[in-house]
Amino acid sequence: MSSFFPTASSAGGSDHGHRTLAEVGEFGLIDEITADLPAGPDVVIGPGDDGAVLAVDSPLVCSVDVLIQDVHFKPQWSSATDVGRKSVAVNVADIEAMGGTATAIVVGFAAPADTEERWALDFARGLRAECDTAGVSLVGGDVTRSAQIAISVTVLGTLDGRAPVRRDGARPGQVVALCGRVGWAAAGLAVLGRGFRSPRAAVQAQQVPEVPYGQGKVAALAGATSMIDISDGLLADLGHVAERSGVAIDLRSDAFEVAEPLQAVAAATGSDPLKLILTGGEDHALAATFAADRVPAGWTVIGAVHEGESAVTVDGASWEGEAGWNHYG
Amino acid sequence: MSSFFPTASSAGGSDHGHRTLAEVGEFGLIDEITADLPAGPDVVIGPGDDGAVLAVDSPLVCSVDVLIQDVHFKPQWSSATDVGRKSVAVNVADIEAMGGTATAIVVGFAAPADTEERWALDFARGLRAECDTAGVSLVGGDVTRSAQIAISVTVLGTLDGRAPVRRDGARPGQVVALCGRVGWAAAGLAVLGRGFRSPRAAVQAQQVPEVPYGQGKVAALAGATSMIDISDGLLADLGHVAERSGVAIDLRSDAFEVAEPLQAVAAATGSDPLKLILTGGEDHALAATFAADRVPAGWTVIGAVHEGESAVTVDGASWEGEAGWNHYG
Repeated sequence: MSSFFPTASSAGGSDHGHRTLAEVGEFGLIDEITADLPAGPDVVIGPGDDGAVLAVDSPLVCSVDVLIQDVHFKPQWSSATDVGRKSVAVNVADIEAMGGTATAIVVGFAAPADTEERWALDFARGLRAECDTAGVSLVGGDVTRSAQIAISVTVLGTLDGRAPVRRDGARPGQVVALCGRVGWAAAGLAVLGRGFRSPRAAVQAQQVPEVPYGQGKVAALAGATSMIDISDGLLADLGHVAERSGVAIDLRSDAFEVAEPLQAVAAATGSDPLKLILTGGEDHALAATFAADRVPAGWTVIGAVHEGESAVTVDGASWEGEAGWNHYG
Repeated sequence: MSSFFPTASSAGGSDHGHRTLAEVGEFGLIDEITADLPAGPDVVIGPGDDGAVLAVDSPLVCSVDVLIQDVHFKPQWSSATDVGRKSVAVNVADIEAMGGTATAIVVGFAAPADTEERWALDFARGLRAECDTAGVSLVGGDVTRSAQIAISVTVLGTLDGRAPVRRDGARPGQVVALCGRVGWAAAGLAVLGRGFRSPRAAVQAQQVPEVPYGQGKVAALAGATSMIDISDGLLADLGHVAERSGVAIDLRSDAFEVAEPLQAVAAATGSDPLKLILTGGEDHALAATFAADRVPAGWTVIGAVHEGESAVTVDGASWEGEAGWNHYG
């Protein structure tokens, strides 16, 4: 445990929200965040000691993601509550992508000393809300001072005795299926970057991804042979699956329904909505490969696995990004 | 997984150390860090998938610590290798303080895009070296861009079926014992802050704490009734034990041997060496309470637990910090 916020020299009155973290102090903030913290039955010791103690199944799945102010979120575009929710969601998605179920998180939170206490408390409120949605317990953390807000979330999860679903199991003849949204967060980023706040659904997708909680386990139970969380974009992330599995993946452009917000953003920005779908990151959908007759309900087949050089193509051709389709590829 | 370092547009030649992280790219850096990574037999899946998978015992101990550039370390005072080692050590200390044995860590690493690759690789070398010393496997991580270097380490550990040792079990009649160094890191900080590099032992203690690995388990097996990691200073951290346990703790000033480097620093800075010992943080010694006849070898009795108001006194009096002893307290 570290203590690098100066301790509050005075109570600072009752006007919570306008105190800064320097005035509240590290321990004051921790007390506020952890008060009445809900905990699942697997939490033996929650926050407040040197470490948390948890009842766990073996093997355990574990992942960490770091979110940095002005890199992963902008305070002027996302509320503190949004950032808290997103911090949990993007991490739980990694456990889902292994076919697991997230159970607990620990959070590192670093912020400038002049950050308003309200921001930190709203952030914690967002953490709690998304933990509640995802069925995860917040069991520990560390709070410290920094020049820009930096958040790390480590998430632990269970496989309930199943084998983990890796990136290297895709085999020729199988299909590629998708669960969740793609392109929405990128569409939101595009409009926020131009100073707009609509379409609201796209902006909200950028602020807090809608992770298909529970679908990683569904895919694992259905026999998914590989799976990945779409954080960097469908082509980029399926590229990891293709490379690890030593296979070619071909996507069908007509498999994607172009949702209304994507159409609107593409029209407003003069771009191809398919570009948002294929290259937009941060939605944290799940993509997996299955035997053709094993695709579970709720998943959409978007392509197929072939023998060949490890690469991802669309309608049999390589995707040229900004330049549009390479019909000669 | 996030990807916020721009991908290298060119290979940049073979002069590794002078490339920046922007030139190397996120995936290049991850490849460098994870190449030939040693892993314990409990690592089912190491870095490279959405999550790591580990064989674990239940219950599991878990803790996170964040280290921020210019708050927890200064690049001009600590080498990247030192920072890597310290990042592991301070976290493993938290598992020790629960009576556990650390088994695995995941690391979040954020750094400016113009950071030299050499710094990141030396940091990773330090992580690996300290993991090796502590018997811990590095199983996963996240790498991203930020304005200042920010490191989060989450450590997992086992209790081997023992009950965790908490902060709230100290009882009147028991003794307080210490294992490890106190005051050394603060002495090192004092000389570094004045532009000096000696005494070398104190400076090294500031750069990389010497955590008494394995002694948390020793204390637990000996029947420790409470335990804490001394990160903020002996008085401050034992204050948490006193408060949680609802007891008074009195330390004996003659119980502390004043090591030569502390004498030297105190003399050079005109301060009381006992102040370094009682209030200096960052050495990550372990303090625990035991029945008087259960103190294990390697631990030094430094005080006793009494009934009374939750507070820590020294020789029966309150410690007044800068003002020296309050003989009238």
